Amino acid sequence: MERSNSIDRRTFVHGAAAGVAGLALGGLPSPLGAHAAADRDAVIAKIASGHAAALTMLRDWIAFPSIAAENRNYPQGAEYMARLARDAGFANARLVPTSGKPGVFGTLDVGARTWLGLYFMYDVKQFDPAEWSSPPLEGRLVKKEGVGTVIVGRGATNQKGPEVACLAALHAFRAANVKLPVNLVLVAEGEEEIGSPSFRQIVLTPEVQAALHRCVGVVIPLGNQGLDGRVQVNLGAKGVIELELVASGEKWGRGPARDVHSSLAAQVDSPAWHLVQALNTLVKPDGHTPAVEGFFDDVRPIGDAQRRILEDAIPRMSEAETKKALGVTRWIADEAWHDSLVRLVSQPTINIEGLVGGYTGPGGKTILPHRAVAKLDMRLVPDMTAAKTLERVKAHLAKHGFGDLEVNMTGGYDPTETPADSKLVHAMMATYRKNGVDPLLWPRLAGSWPGATFTAPPLNLPAGQFGLGHGAGAHAPDEYWLVESTNPNVVGMDGAAKSFVDFFYELA
Amino acid sequence: MERSNSIDRRTFVHGAAAGVAGLALGGLPSPLGAHAAADRDAVIAKIASGHAAALTMLRDWIAFPSIAAENRNYPQGAEYMARLARDAGFANARLVPTSGKPGVFGTLDVGARTWLGLYFMYDVKQFDPAEWSSPPLEGRLVKKEGVGTVIVGRGATNQKGPEVACLAALHAFRAANVKLPVNLVLVAEGEEEIGSPSFRQIVLTPEVQAALHRCVGVVIPLGNQGLDGRVQVNLGAKGVIELELVASGEKWGRGPARDVHSSLAAQVDSPAWHLVQALNTLVKPDGHTPAVEGFFDDVRPIGDAQRRILEDAIPRMSEAETKKALGVTRWIADEAWHDSLVRLVSQPTINIEGLVGGYTGPGGKTILPHRAVAKLDMRLVPDMTAAKTLERVKAHLAKHGFGDLEVNMTGGYDPTETPADSKLVHAMMATYRKNGVDPLLWPRLAGSWPGATFTAPPLNLPAGQFGLGHGAGAHAPDEYWLVESTNPNVVGMDGAAKSFVDFFYELA
Repeated sequence: MERSNSIDRRTFVHGAAAGVAGLALGGLPSPLGAHAAADRDAVIAKIASGHAAALTMLRDWIAFPSIAAENRNYPQGAEYMARLARDAGFANARLVPTSGKPGVFGTLDVGARTWLGLYFMYDVKQFDPAEWSSPPLEGRLVKKEGVGTVIVGRGATNQKGPEVACLAALHAFRAANVKLPVNLVLVAEGEEEIGSPSFRQIVLTPEVQAALHRCVGVVIPLGNQGLDGRVQVNLGAKGVIELELVASGEKWGRGPARDVHSSLAAQVDSPAWHLVQALNTLVKPDGHTPAVEGFFDDVRPIGDAQRRILEDAIPRMSEAETKKALGVTRWIADEAWHDSLVRLVSQPTINIEGLVGGYTGPGGKTILPHRAVAKLDMRLVPDMTAAKTLERVKAHLAKHGFGDLEVNMTGGYDPTETPADSKLVHAMMATYRKNGVDPLLWPRLAGSWPGATFTAPPLNLPAGQFGLGHGAGAHAPDEYWLVESTNPNVVGMDGAAKSFVDFFYELA
Repeated sequence: MERSNSIDRRTFVHGAAAGVAGLALGGLPSPLGAHAAADRDAVIAKIASGHAAALTMLRDWIAFPSIAAENRNYPQGAEYMARLARDAGFANARLVPTSGKPGVFGTLDVGARTWLGLYFMYDVKQFDPAEWSSPPLEGRLVKKEGVGTVIVGRGATNQKGPEVACLAALHAFRAANVKLPVNLVLVAEGEEEIGSPSFRQIVLTPEVQAALHRCVGVVIPLGNQGLDGRVQVNLGAKGVIELELVASGEKWGRGPARDVHSSLAAQVDSPAWHLVQALNTLVKPDGHTPAVEGFFDDVRPIGDAQRRILEDAIPRMSEAETKKALGVTRWIADEAWHDSLVRLVSQPTINIEGLVGGYTGPGGKTILPHRAVAKLDMRLVPDMTAAKTLERVKAHLAKHGFGDLEVNMTGGYDPTETPADSKLVHAMMATYRKNGVDPLLWPRLAGSWPGATFTAPPLNLPAGQFGLGHGAGAHAPDEYWLVESTNPNVVGMDGAAKSFVDFFYELA
């Protein structure tokens, strides 16, 4: 499943924050009282002394992957997650059964005034060891030019590295014998990579819901930093539907039931042409504007507040850097940079992720394929929903003579929104600034994550991604998470853990 | 490259010839004089005694594949072919250099009145041993239920088995010390599987052209029989263009130069949508009629003679069997069987062989691909030509705003036509009938082969496929050629050789 945190964040940040100051990780001008400041320093010191243990925790966890698509390591992966949570202080951490894979739930109530929700995923994406330069479950430490020492392994950055950084912060509080400034609720799932089909069941379990209800918001730990150190705070994210559109001779009742010789194109209808014609109805002649009937009916235009945030942010975004990073020379409709960014934030999309049908090898093969598939994703903005949009796509296809096409939704999330004036967002912004990073406040992530489970009723909580640190290669070979940074712009594993310490104090 | 002989012939025959008599391979009522009949019987006897040698010839040849796409065994494969030809009596067989792979040319002049051309290919299709149930170069003998003992190997039926049957017939004449009733010209190429790019150079080499010019026609040896024993004689074949249509961000100057995150569909143009929109212009809304400007300009309607042949043949074709074999329930436009066969013979097509772009694995992946490819083939009828049609496709795309798409032609042939009243066709029909098979005369193969090199100027020769025998799996794993038949409908290797003996006598 697609997640914001599985994405090279350049994709979203677009070379943002030209005004970012250099990082200054040393002694902060602290707003904490002298006692709290001493506590914090003691905790930070324990992060350093706990470095080896945290690295071992991460390496061991990488060695034990839960992969929902392969039904690998369930419920053992959940039990492992629960044990990691208990070790970090969630004494009551336990499995939450669902109709799919179990979740994990635990609370850490220190009697503080403020509660914070932590959303973890314990599953990882599939991998093919043949594509990796070191075994994907080994967690090998590798020196990476211009970055530092990274740990290479499946799940390193998506999401075990950042999650271990968060847990390492909690271990540091325990080791320093310092009371946490906030109470925590941990909710974890093991099906994020297949689209979180059971996550709502976990969150709506009465005691989980009740615990989350007390929280000021929920964050997923994320290594937010690009190699330039930049960080983005998103006030929500687009929703997404991923689906396969399948044209087949059998379902259609025309064309062949298996691949036949291509000379028969003179006599037999072609499911591949049927698919092409169906696809062609989904976007307007401009090649991008969705043409599905009713697609825009629920689109709420961005409001004045979002517009102001956007206008503040846009001047910090570098068009040249972004074009270079993406390999793009023109924006849609040859729009100016400003307008293309407004479009990025505000418009829903229908995208072709992949086309696959018939012969796909080198050269040609004279067949008329019995089946052809388009993999699509559609990005949704408020107040669109995944369910309603799927209905509209199906109705549109039926109306245009393509009702026989299978529409197999493989995953999806509703859009999320989190208020800029929420305590959660204020604390994120302040924590980044105190760590010398000037964050870019951004109205809406163009990518998607399962945050709607928190931001939608009944919880209606602010939710987002938080954390310093750096990783890359989510879903790809040689996924890594930065352990020791040699890049002055970004922090390593300990710096990532420290950002959680500061975040907890900031929230309190 | 596509060839008629690489195709399960059911594809074309459509369960033809409901009236086919059982095979009666025994003593023919011979029109030959007593002397000739005795000669013939002596030759046939030598086919049986030469069986083991012929099988060894085939197995050794299978073990030595020439594959043009891999530049494997050149010029050694040509030298091997030349040696096989010399061994069979083409004493002067030699290599014909080209700008690509060498051809082979030889003559066997016994002073007969009639000359016949033989077209051989010595190359084979690529293979992946992992997909085979026995090593593709071993030539293992395997018992196949309902068929008999077959030899399994790359090239077994496409085209070494049938070619060895023809060579075995020549060896039998020598062994029986019987004079051939015809003179022969052998012309072979080693690039058939990549679309015969140099074959015209071979044929137009002055001495080759002069020798072919004397011939009454040219045949490629082919195991024509389906498992029901049926045989089809084609009075020509459609031409073909195979091409890849490639949409890429770089060539377009829009969209990304590499795959980017799919959320960017709101900001960046999509080469995949561009491809879909281009494809959509190539056929009419009916989903099959070519819509390329000028596509039909050179189409010559089938004439009265062809129409009569078609009307004679259609009643022998079984719609029910064909539908079952193809897994088809309806013909294009819900046409009746008769009309769909007329369409099959008379209409040019544009077919999608394959679609491939972006993410093609299981589930989805949230990318906006920088490149997408459609593999197309177009079947051409007289008087269309591959070159002119390609021009029209390019002009059409440019006119409709898709001039940036790469149009990479990977192979093609012009259509061929051979007169029904030619000596070659008469001899084929008579030979089949004398072997107890009632052949189906068919106006035009819907598939394609490089016969236009013979049928077009300057040679203007009749040309077609000839031979009894059975094989399957051309271009596929476990390709085989029938050695010893246990199926009363079809003949084995010796029967295939015998059909050439009878064909030579029939032509003389």
